[in-house]
Amino acid sequence: MQLLRSLCRVPAPAGNEGTLARFVLDYARREQARWQHRPQIIADDRFQDCVLLVFGRPRTAVFAHLDSIGFTVRYGRQLVRIGGPQAEAGCRLVGNDSQGEVDCTLTIDDQTGEPGYAFHRDIDRGTELTFYCDFRETATTVQSCYLDNRLGVWNALRLCETLEHGVVAFSCWEEHGGGSVAYLAKFIHETYGVRQALISDITWVSEGVRAGQGCAISLRDSLIPRRAYVDRVRAIAAASGIAHQLEVEGGGGSDAAELQRAAAPWDWCFVGAPEAHVHTPDELVDKRDIASMLALYQALMREL
Amino acid sequence: MQLLRSLCRVPAPAGNEGTLARFVLDYARREQARWQHRPQIIADDRFQDCVLLVFGRPRTAVFAHLDSIGFTVRYGRQLVRIGGPQAEAGCRLVGNDSQGEVDCTLTIDDQTGEPGYAFHRDIDRGTELTFYCDFRETATTVQSCYLDNRLGVWNALRLCETLEHGVVAFSCWEEHGGGSVAYLAKFIHETYGVRQALISDITWVSEGVRAGQGCAISLRDSLIPRRAYVDRVRAIAAASGIAHQLEVEGGGGSDAAELQRAAAPWDWCFVGAPEAHVHTPDELVDKRDIASMLALYQALMREL
Amino acid sequence: MQLLRSLCRVPAPAGNEGTLARFVLDYARREQARWQHRPQIIADDRFQDCVLLVFGRPRTAVFAHLDSIGFTVRYGRQLVRIGGPQAEAGCRLVGNDSQGEVDCTLTIDDQTGEPGYAFHRDIDRGTELTFYCDFRETATTVQSCYLDNRLGVWNALRLCETLEHGVVAFSCWEEHGGGSVAYLAKFIHETYGVRQALISDITWVSEGVRAGQGCAISLRDSLIPRRAYVDRVRAIAAASGIAHQLEVEGGGGSDAAELQRAAAPWDWCFVGAPEAHVHTPDELVDKRDIASMLALYQALMREL
Repeated sequence: MQLLRSLCRVPAPAGNEGTLARFVLDYARREQARWQHRPQIIADDRFQDCVLLVFGRPRTAVFAHLDSIGFTVRYGRQLVRIGGPQAEAGCRLVGNDSQGEVDCTLTIDDQTGEPGYAFHRDIDRGTELTFYCDFRETATTVQSCYLDNRLGVWNALRLCETLEHGVVAFSCWEEHGGGSVAYLAKFIHETYGVRQALISDITWVSEGVRAGQGCAISLRDSLIPRRAYVDRVRAIAAASGIAHQLEVEGGGGSDAAELQRAAAPWDWCFVGAPEAHVHTPDELVDKRDIASMLALYQALMREL
Repeated sequence: MQLLRSLCRVPAPAGNEGTLARFVLDYARREQARWQHRPQIIADDRFQDCVLLVFGRPRTAVFAHLDSIGFTVRYGRQLVRIGGPQAEAGCRLVGNDSQGEVDCTLTIDDQTGEPGYAFHRDIDRGTELTFYCDFRETATTVQSCYLDNRLGVWNALRLCETLEHGVVAFSCWEEHGGGSVAYLAKFIHETYGVRQALISDITWVSEGVRAGQGCAISLRDSLIPRRAYVDRVRAIAAASGIAHQLEVEGGGGSDAAELQRAAAPWDWCFVGAPEAHVHTPDELVDKRDIASMLALYQALMREL
Repeated sequence: MQLLRSLCRVPAPAGNEGTLARFVLDYARREQARWQHRPQIIADDRFQDCVLLVFGRPRTAVFAHLDSIGFTVRYGRQLVRIGGPQAEAGCRLVGNDSQGEVDCTLTIDDQTGEPGYAFHRDIDRGTELTFYCDFRETATTVQSCYLDNRLGVWNALRLCETLEHGVVAFSCWEEHGGGSVAYLAKFIHETYGVRQALISDITWVSEGVRAGQGCAISLRDSLIPRRAYVDRVRAIAAASGIAHQLEVEGGGGSDAAELQRAAAPWDWCFVGAPEAHVHTPDELVDKRDIASMLALYQALMREL
């Protein structure tokens, strides 16, 4: 879990993913010698802060978003949300501005419910703050801020160790309306003819999806993927013998929203471990579900 | 109305339109010999469960969505909505799962307003349920679930009997956020240079649009089409002498939303009969408005 | 301010921007002889009612929306909003229908809050109404309806006087969900390789952005631009010595929404003067902020 710990500690609020993109890029460049197959590594101005790893003759693309939720410093001691953080007053927020490091405390206005900060000085307007990372590991669980989606990124990087054919795409802005998958999908579709996707992201523990019972295959969330494709994913998962659970939700979204809207016929399916304490500094995932997620991706990328 | 009755009975909840797409495809292949002009029939992996019929040298494309509203089975006896069904508790829902046919009853939670089902057994997670089709015809009306949009599909298919130049596109996912018109529009625009569209869909009876007074030409709904194009549609309708009504709404949407967002300069206009009891099992349309709709499409596709 | 006054007086509710597009086109054709560099002027069926001016070898595109908020006449004496007008009952609305000029009064329903009109006769269904333009100028301010975004258009046209390299794009539908920037951006990106944008639009005076203290550079609104690009904009602004303010908001949007969703890696930044009395007939802007806006655009288009 050393890689996961490192990933959780790199700040990457939506819109400012450059540092984590470089981390992933450095990791891929360094580790690829140990991977069974070497990818083409694509990361240049055409892709902003995204990274693409292309293995063999791809049929399916994996999307894992780099960005996280957080806050932007507004005026006075006000904060504006990046995505949908669920933190409580008193939680520790960190960042950097022109005067140096920031380590402050979240406040919540009694009247308005609006977030703010307590700190010994004003923080520069526009500074992004993220949760302080307290990474906790037990024999059976990992707990940290930003397992959503550093665990999806971790899963994608671990998948690279054995991947023969496929695209692994690291995207930006997922937590705040999207903005990179549209062009990533266009490039992948037009360059490689790929139109099958898996969304390597984290979902939530619910009355129907329990911690420890395997990675979730989402049959739908706020959007509905094409049944014919999801049925293929389910059939492969069932035949694999790998523990998994079927999820059905009416809300929530992912990078799939941009695939669904794309001007290309993308089939997609969200496949990801469930977590408790979603969008807090204490996101909690069962290690069995992490193992199941990686195993499922290995099977799916072989057989789809 | 035999064709309409058949169309209403084929289940096609958003995301699972394959069966209805095959029905339309079979119909087109069988009936085209009797049409005045033979279309090119396009339906392959590039278009998921959509179907395109291309006649002559097209200037205008007609979009008719195949999909319907419905419900997805969640956990316990819970349902999640597909699109915006307006059904009351006690209404009959049908589907299929691994144990066979499902014929159950809609329930509504008193506290939460959330939908559920009553049935003698649990239904598989992720199963789609649709309204039971009770098709009713009188001398002056038709009534059934899913006239929205099987009547739009019917109109498009009947239009094919006489169409010389034009594209007829059968789309998916319209009731649940869209997802196919973006790529259909891209293909149609790039292949044929077409950027004029008519939306063959059903609207609602209101204080300004009455049953029996002709097909509605929508001047706007939640989106606003380009005035210059709508004025051309209105002028052709006025010159045709065909009964029609002008609609102005602030809400509601259609496949046009994806044309409006498209990276091509689509002009579009929604032209469709009004119905009462929208999104219930009892959608009701006046036959005069159906006749007006088809006649208007014939005139518009000739003259636009 | 004669040009600004003229721009404010031309009606261009979203969806019906043709008259203002022709005004801008005529202006550009007439004035270009006096500009330091002559643009290529692009305005044809591929761009609906949009206008493009392309100078030299462009690296950055400026987007200024032509359209305004307003109302559409519905049934009876009802109105439906175009965009988000904030007007009070009694305000004067003007338009044209088949019976001639319309000069009526806005009403607001006590019960529903819905807008309507008072006039001596019924107005044709679908007629667009806009605020009556009462343009007021003092030594230090301008005040009128539709400074949002005629001032953004004015800024773009004045920028043309000295612009050497760049695209100036006049867009449609911004106030009502967008619909032109997707294809403008695609054309600009594919034709010129440009993927840097500035949004020439008007923002609002707030507790952090004061009238008279310079044009606002928005660090975020409902969307978050890429930090790396915004930092470059800020650095150029800081080095220029031109008065400006940094804005941070959680709401509001602009033409940038379509760039963010585009299937190309657009970097964008909203740079615009703040106004008081947003979306009313009395929008008010400080002349110092107008001067600052134009000067900033001149610097940014040189150096980005």
